Amino acid sequence: MAANFEEVAKQFVQFYYETFDSDRTQLGNLYREQSMLTFESSSVLGAGNIVEKLVSLPFQKVKHEIATLDAQPGMGDGSVIILVTGALKVDEEERPMNYTQTFQLAATPDKQYFVYNDIFKLIY
Amino acid sequence: MAANFEEVAKQFVQFYYETFDSDRTQLGNLYREQSMLTFESSSVLGAGNIVEKLVSLPFQKVKHEIATLDAQPGMGDGSVIILVTGALKVDEEERPMNYTQTFQLAATPDKQYFVYNDIFKLIY
Repeated sequence: MAANFEEVAKQFVQFYYETFDSDRTQLGNLYREQSMLTFESSSVLGAGNIVEKLVSLPFQKVKHEIATLDAQPGMGDGSVIILVTGALKVDEEERPMNYTQTFQLAATPDKQYFVYNDIFKLIY
Repeated sequence: MAANFEEVAKQFVQFYYETFDSDRTQLGNLYREQSMLTFESSSVLGAGNIVEKLVSLPFQKVKHEIATLDAQPGMGDGSVIILVTGALKVDEEERPMNYTQTFQLAATPDKQYFVYNDIFKLIY
């Protein structure tokens, strides 16, 4: 698995932002009870709270564009840590906002991945 | 320990950049053989290779300014994951460069911390 971490990272990030941009109510499947999200320095724990936070964000339309993606094997068996930089546009706003986001994906014994750590920060 | 992760993160990041900016040959003490650095998408494994990479960077003077720091408990026992955004100036260059960096700190059984994951990326 460890040799494959870059492919896992790419596939995850692509799927994550596609889901976020099309229907972010579906993101709950990517988190578990022990998952933590820190969004603009505000932290919530657990899949239910995380989806509630993401759905409550004050925009209807959103589009993420990935600029860079770097990955390493994480600390847990099969886990992957990812650093993304990118830009996002919300609603009718023309000017993109730059952001950075780090994920740590955990692997279950049957090779399912979920998000263990998720920290999102806008860059001004 | 887990309740203390934010304090660990702040102290580590402050110490890390102070050491980097004053004498980066000393950063080797913060890494171990299993540590990985990905610097501008180029990866090296192990404390020796990491310090060699950091020392070889083509500037004499460097100054990091932290803009934001967010932390969460990481995946290992006592571990901490950190996302930093900031700016750095090198040599006589007046214009700072923006960067983002994520660390995962591992804790040894006797509560020593070392850098397990380190991903650094300039933001253009």
